[in-house]
Amino acid sequence: MYRPVVISSDDMADEEASVRLLPGLPSYESRDKKAPEGGWSMRNTAFLASLVLNLMFIAMLVAVFGLSWMTPNSHTPAAPQWNDALQAAELAASKWCSGNGNVFVDTLGFNADGSGDCECNDCFTGPDCSISVPDCIADADAGDPLLFEAYWRENADLGTTVIPGWYRMSYRPQDGATTLYTDGFMAAIKDLHALVGNAVTEGRYIVAGTGSMQLINAVVHSLALQDEGRVTPVVAKAPFYNAYSLQTEYLESPLYKFAGEPDRLTGNPNGKGGQIELIASPNNPSFQMQEVTQNVTGPVVYDHAYYWPHLTPITKTMDSDIMLFTLSKITGHAGSRVGWVIMKDFDLFQKVTWYTMINTIGVSHDAQARATQLMRTVIRSYSKGDPGKKGIFHYGQKELQSRWARLQDIFKNSSRFSLQELKPGYCNFFKKVSDPSPGYAWIHCNHEEDVDCQAVMLSGGITGRPGSEFGSSDRYVRLALLKRQSSFENLVAHLEKLVAQT
Amino acid sequence: MYRPVVISSDDMADEEASVRLLPGLPSYESRDKKAPEGGWSMRNTAFLASLVLNLMFIAMLVAVFGLSWMTPNSHTPAAPQWNDALQAAELAASKWCSGNGNVFVDTLGFNADGSGDCECNDCFTGPDCSISVPDCIADADAGDPLLFEAYWRENADLGTTVIPGWYRMSYRPQDGATTLYTDGFMAAIKDLHALVGNAVTEGRYIVAGTGSMQLINAVVHSLALQDEGRVTPVVAKAPFYNAYSLQTEYLESPLYKFAGEPDRLTGNPNGKGGQIELIASPNNPSFQMQEVTQNVTGPVVYDHAYYWPHLTPITKTMDSDIMLFTLSKITGHAGSRVGWVIMKDFDLFQKVTWYTMINTIGVSHDAQARATQLMRTVIRSYSKGDPGKKGIFHYGQKELQSRWARLQDIFKNSSRFSLQELKPGYCNFFKKVSDPSPGYAWIHCNHEEDVDCQAVMLSGGITGRPGSEFGSSDRYVRLALLKRQSSFENLVAHLEKLVAQT
Repeated sequence: MYRPVVISSDDMADEEASVRLLPGLPSYESRDKKAPEGGWSMRNTAFLASLVLNLMFIAMLVAVFGLSWMTPNSHTPAAPQWNDALQAAELAASKWCSGNGNVFVDTLGFNADGSGDCECNDCFTGPDCSISVPDCIADADAGDPLLFEAYWRENADLGTTVIPGWYRMSYRPQDGATTLYTDGFMAAIKDLHALVGNAVTEGRYIVAGTGSMQLINAVVHSLALQDEGRVTPVVAKAPFYNAYSLQTEYLESPLYKFAGEPDRLTGNPNGKGGQIELIASPNNPSFQMQEVTQNVTGPVVYDHAYYWPHLTPITKTMDSDIMLFTLSKITGHAGSRVGWVIMKDFDLFQKVTWYTMINTIGVSHDAQARATQLMRTVIRSYSKGDPGKKGIFHYGQKELQSRWARLQDIFKNSSRFSLQELKPGYCNFFKKVSDPSPGYAWIHCNHEEDVDCQAVMLSGGITGRPGSEFGSSDRYVRLALLKRQSSFENLVAHLEKLVAQT
Repeated sequence: MYRPVVISSDDMADEEASVRLLPGLPSYESRDKKAPEGGWSMRNTAFLASLVLNLMFIAMLVAVFGLSWMTPNSHTPAAPQWNDALQAAELAASKWCSGNGNVFVDTLGFNADGSGDCECNDCFTGPDCSISVPDCIADADAGDPLLFEAYWRENADLGTTVIPGWYRMSYRPQDGATTLYTDGFMAAIKDLHALVGNAVTEGRYIVAGTGSMQLINAVVHSLALQDEGRVTPVVAKAPFYNAYSLQTEYLESPLYKFAGEPDRLTGNPNGKGGQIELIASPNNPSFQMQEVTQNVTGPVVYDHAYYWPHLTPITKTMDSDIMLFTLSKITGHAGSRVGWVIMKDFDLFQKVTWYTMINTIGVSHDAQARATQLMRTVIRSYSKGDPGKKGIFHYGQKELQSRWARLQDIFKNSSRFSLQELKPGYCNFFKKVSDPSPGYAWIHCNHEEDVDCQAVMLSGGITGRPGSEFGSSDRYVRLALLKRQSSFENLVAHLEKLVAQT
């Protein structure tokens, strides 16, 4: 295990000077010749020990610094001097926040001397986040994947991204590049899919986006462009991820229009394009696998954000025409804004690429760099050369299985509330039958008077997302299970109370 | 100056062990008592010197490692073990690419042992980029700010961004955040504007974007939403940055429509909103300052991408209703995709924020982290506590002034070509009159037969962007002056030849 150490080059200069000024050492032979009275004395032993110690120190210096100080005209450029940034980052990272907060170099009030308050997690407060906020609401609205934060903290030697000042400054990833992405980034995406076996990438076209959020509209817009001369309906079967309708309606266009439920019976007899169907599998919010099998007269966009082994069993290698993925739900880095879409059609690939060019000139190279580092870390942790290192899929699955089991326990005797039904399934990645490990609870309020399940939750000090946002009834509410352990514990405490009330 | 050094903690353990195993040293008193024959001997001197050296080494170790190995139960968590990522980054950065290429950790073929080819800059090739490509076309089409790459390489100890694995993973920058941005990022933007004095931020609302590219449409869309019930015309006075028309037309909407030239005479009598005018100042492509003063019946969006001291004199602190800025043209980090817009109207701020939420759920936290580090570096280099450090504005201005002077020299006797006229001006930042330092040459082909100036340039081995893309005539062509020194030298060589032909 290595620990980066700071040594002032001033110190080093002193050492070099002192080594060179070392007085001539008596040789072994001369010491023998001048045998002191009484033979080998304590002083001789001490002297020898001291010399040996010095030799060890020198050897250590040479091993560390090399002999470069001996060869003045070396063509190799010196390693960059990054200590400034490194020290600041280490100082921030070593701040104690009671296990319930963070300090980063860009934390407000963080100073070079290490002073400054922590940024506290939900329901904690105080300069070092040691104070629990009493009666803190359990916020389970957003699918914020913070449960992975602990994983990356525990594996601090992995996943750190060091970005030099001159890293990929151009609009293009490098001179002469024909795509918007770094080679390492694209390779990591393909390698990750190959490791997990959840999607075909060989012979496919991949466009990255600032989150899969950007790509949803990029794909819709591009598909609609391929369907010239009509307003292409965009559909999704309820319950569906609320962004599908929200985004499609907000970024309104003469090319397409959100049209609610898919037309399964007639397909869509008007025009050749049919409907653009958006479908998540596993579904958000219910986490049930789904696919479009009947009356397909138009393109189907599969959103596989949650099709990773910690969240759902990998039952087959998906090979649909259009498949969306996001880093957010793989490693938990929702804030990095990295997603991608895998496509078979080259014309669609060109159009989706152009959309991202016009919208944002591609994806931040910094985000690509970070995503590459994180994905490589995941891949490496599952490589044969790294035995025993617990990978993120094991970590996440264990945690989410435990959470789901606890939820089932809470609701098992409740007639007032129902959880969605999920069955265990064989996972090709874990090579065994896996219990469910969903990211969301999709709860139904059964009592006649509980028409607004979100309000019922709120009465119990829990915020969830109402069913109507997903195109369903407000008797449904979605609770996110992806947050930190402290958030989940708070959620469980509130749920137990709420369920017990009945 | 500090140099990060790797010392194996195994080595350290050995040192600790050897220190503890050091045989008891004879005291000074005992040495005096056993005075050897002949008084103070050479051996004594050597012994003393050796002991002094021991003490110096030990002091060095203590200064570096501290006494933490002496206090077993420390509550401070250990500094993170980031050596893996750091070593890889350093190895990549120290690869020799003949000064005409780069290696990063995500370079294709870069291996842990340091092997692998360089990524070569335009017009260079070979594993170490030492081979010049003969007759290499001078690509001056895109305004790629690569001239700053050398600055960041020279200042390798600045601007490095170290991002821990658990950095800001949430969709929100931190728990409880009410905006999409980190505090440090917003503070750096305001501090930078305060340092330069180019725009008012006090009491203003700021939205960041994935490049100012994203924000152009975000602002247009939001302004059109404020102008309900009509198709709001979007206008720009030629020559204008081609993205204004390209983007507005591509992301077509029932809310707005690109309508070409602004209507100055009548304003726009239809409806209350008038026209949304997009105007860059300094202008892209001509780098002339411009403002809208007459017949303003609608909102004006000022694009101040180039309003920084290295590119143009800072004549006043801008305080318009809507002002766009981008990191790309400040530090040169076009690939990071960071821009922002400063606004006075709170409703507009809310709408623009919502657009970026719907489009991309904000800006990558990794990009914010990098931008913060880079902006802080710029600010710090101009702080009183950092005298003598050449700041990026000095660096950039000097380089661009030199380039412009050379261009003027090339074209001064040419009747075939004209450069745009730019005058020196007093700069509030440099506190002196500054010669022009534009990022683009906006060249006019004067000969009757030269109707297509881009083609004329191409005949001389130069790629430029045609005037028609900027809403002007094809007798104009824009040449970018912002690239690396090697690119500019190549451009100059080709231009000299072309001009000499006439």
